[in-house]
Amino acid sequence: MPPKAEQPPARTAFLFGLGDELLRGDHADLNSPYLARILREFGYQVVETRVLPDDQPAMVRALREASQRASLVLTTGGLGPTADDLTRHAAAEAAGVPIEFDEATWQWVLAWYLDSKRVPPESNRRQALLPRGGIALHNVAGTAPGLRLALGSATLFCLPGPPREVEPMVERELIPWLRAQAPDEECRHTLRVFLASLSESQFADEAGPLLDRHDDALVGVTAKAGRLAVTITTLDRTPQAAQHRAEALQAQFVERFGASVYSLDEPDLEQVLGRELIARGVRVTAAESCTLGMVAAALGAVPGISAVLDETYGTYSNAAKTRTLGVPSAVLERFGAVSEPVARAMALGALERSGADLAVSVTGVAGPDGGTPEKPVGLVWFAVAWRGKVLLAESRQFPPASRERVRTWASNWALHALLRVLRSV
Amino acid sequence: MPPKAEQPPARTAFLFGLGDELLRGDHADLNSPYLARILREFGYQVVETRVLPDDQPAMVRALREASQRASLVLTTGGLGPTADDLTRHAAAEAAGVPIEFDEATWQWVLAWYLDSKRVPPESNRRQALLPRGGIALHNVAGTAPGLRLALGSATLFCLPGPPREVEPMVERELIPWLRAQAPDEECRHTLRVFLASLSESQFADEAGPLLDRHDDALVGVTAKAGRLAVTITTLDRTPQAAQHRAEALQAQFVERFGASVYSLDEPDLEQVLGRELIARGVRVTAAESCTLGMVAAALGAVPGISAVLDETYGTYSNAAKTRTLGVPSAVLERFGAVSEPVARAMALGALERSGADLAVSVTGVAGPDGGTPEKPVGLVWFAVAWRGKVLLAESRQFPPASRERVRTWASNWALHALLRVLRSV
Repeated sequence: MPPKAEQPPARTAFLFGLGDELLRGDHADLNSPYLARILREFGYQVVETRVLPDDQPAMVRALREASQRASLVLTTGGLGPTADDLTRHAAAEAAGVPIEFDEATWQWVLAWYLDSKRVPPESNRRQALLPRGGIALHNVAGTAPGLRLALGSATLFCLPGPPREVEPMVERELIPWLRAQAPDEECRHTLRVFLASLSESQFADEAGPLLDRHDDALVGVTAKAGRLAVTITTLDRTPQAAQHRAEALQAQFVERFGASVYSLDEPDLEQVLGRELIARGVRVTAAESCTLGMVAAALGAVPGISAVLDETYGTYSNAAKTRTLGVPSAVLERFGAVSEPVARAMALGALERSGADLAVSVTGVAGPDGGTPEKPVGLVWFAVAWRGKVLLAESRQFPPASRERVRTWASNWALHALLRVLRSV
Repeated sequence: MPPKAEQPPARTAFLFGLGDELLRGDHADLNSPYLARILREFGYQVVETRVLPDDQPAMVRALREASQRASLVLTTGGLGPTADDLTRHAAAEAAGVPIEFDEATWQWVLAWYLDSKRVPPESNRRQALLPRGGIALHNVAGTAPGLRLALGSATLFCLPGPPREVEPMVERELIPWLRAQAPDEECRHTLRVFLASLSESQFADEAGPLLDRHDDALVGVTAKAGRLAVTITTLDRTPQAAQHRAEALQAQFVERFGASVYSLDEPDLEQVLGRELIARGVRVTAAESCTLGMVAAALGAVPGISAVLDETYGTYSNAAKTRTLGVPSAVLERFGAVSEPVARAMALGALERSGADLAVSVTGVAGPDGGTPEKPVGLVWFAVAWRGKVLLAESRQFPPASRERVRTWASNWALHALLRVLRSV
């Protein structure tokens, strides 16, 4: 029995995560928050999300209810080749249509296996089943095709479970569909601003009225260990007008936050830094004490960084700072390892030893032990040296919440300090 | 109107995450998977989880439905002091009881503020409201008291939203309640086994019948980049019998997987390794090429590691391998940087330079570029040296899915290689 054709409210969405492994708590449903953020950019309100077991009658009941409460229903999971992958069958039953073998979809599944030089097991034929009237959605990252299907007066999208398969399908199938559905008189434009070395509350204080909500502009913020992602979405009658409004708002953030802004399009601070280093041929290194290896590991995440990175230093003990970086013992004894003179000497020593152009040093008290009244847990000194001169030396007192948080904050701060100096020379 | 007193199936649970911020996708509902894992240990099956908006009528409807479908209903979120915190009111309405100011609960809220030398705003009085017949649950990490309430023939627990407040309340209130509810003739015992350097499919192949499900023993597995966590839960008539069965099953895993087992209680491989190094006073170092800093950063995450860690080496270029680790140029030229002789020379050079007892080296092709037919992306060589001798040298071909995955696999492999050698000397 198909659902009654009641008209659900426009631009409302109902999300499902499907699979016993989610209910067992093996992992969290991370697809639903990701989809919610995408949908928000297109003006959709998510009315509810549910996680259901691999149980066809339960799925059918819930899909029908959802199709009466929202105009768009999205599921993730349950599209695999095994008998407990029931999403396709539940969708067909909820829509009241038969399920049929689709030769074109089967060719996709076969092509996926051919690419990886394997032969698909017979069970994979299940993945080529398609409810009548449905559209198969190409999966570029796995064998499970997605599905779009009318469900009463709502539209149902069934997406795979693994986020690495969901994201390309959303980019290639869902977002173009959302764009095509948007009313002519309403155009949205979304821009981003990425900032570093700020806490969320510092950001909110400084942003002030830029964060106010208006009907035609929405600003969202997510924050993690000093890295912030700002999403600006504007609404207007033409694409040009929406774009101009978004650009104007983005420019206000850039003006307000200056050097805290590290990118307008790339969320990963290390990728931004690494690409600028590579593009300019600036050779880089890092000398780390409390973050031991974290700054190096972030730089190492950038493809092609070997063109500008020769070596990095994890100098934990005072002896190592002296032996490898040439920090004078007298300086260590007089000021202590967590001090401006030692941070400066570490950065200069790293430059000299590696022959790089640009070096950052990090020395601090990560905790949980080792803090003193003068040098509490969370105090970290940084220096950045450029071709034989220290251009930046500063300390921060990070919240001493945990050793990992102090180290992550300090590592992000060091990467951003490198970028700030790089952009100033 | 209270729900009809239909009897829901025993030991079933229905979970809710409450709050607009979850539906907007600001963050994922991480409480539900956490609660699911706790509940599983007590034999509960989670039948469904939902995320609902801050909307009292919607909450009331869903709570009533849940109380007919599960014997235990858990909510997280919506217990704060502001007007959009509606969980207490929704619980009272769903149960058909009035909501009343509770002086004892108010004293808890006051005490929380006194501890932090602040005065509670008047709005906090809302947090001392309690549905009649309900039990307030003490929050040791925040002002929001929890709530336990009969809901039809089900039991409702309302918990706060932030995980750091949820976890102590679960430990202090939910788990003792679950223990008290367990039938006398049924005792559960849970043990863990943590393994490294195995993929999930290798594990499943080798474990074979150890993974079969039985009514009285449940084995769950989670896997990430070569680290696996196995949870064994057994059921028997006495605590001793359940414990013996769990220990016997755990011993079978230990026997089957041998050196792959790195711990029976600590999930973090780096903590296990670091603590054994510290306890034995074994001085450690790492020489890293493709993982640049990742092994060092993992060691640096261990509190107190400075007692046995002097310095680490990020030697990316051939020149750095020669300059800092003394790898002969001729060896690099003849065998290439990704080779057994270079891995061996790096480990020995790191020992010599640092004066440590134990060193690991990592050199591989992280990708996405730089692979060749002979040395494809994902090929990584490792060596571990102990006091002047190489005791382990091996290569792995990791799946070339992404640069980050190759590096994470390689870093985990290197940490486990250190532990395997440490336990053999």
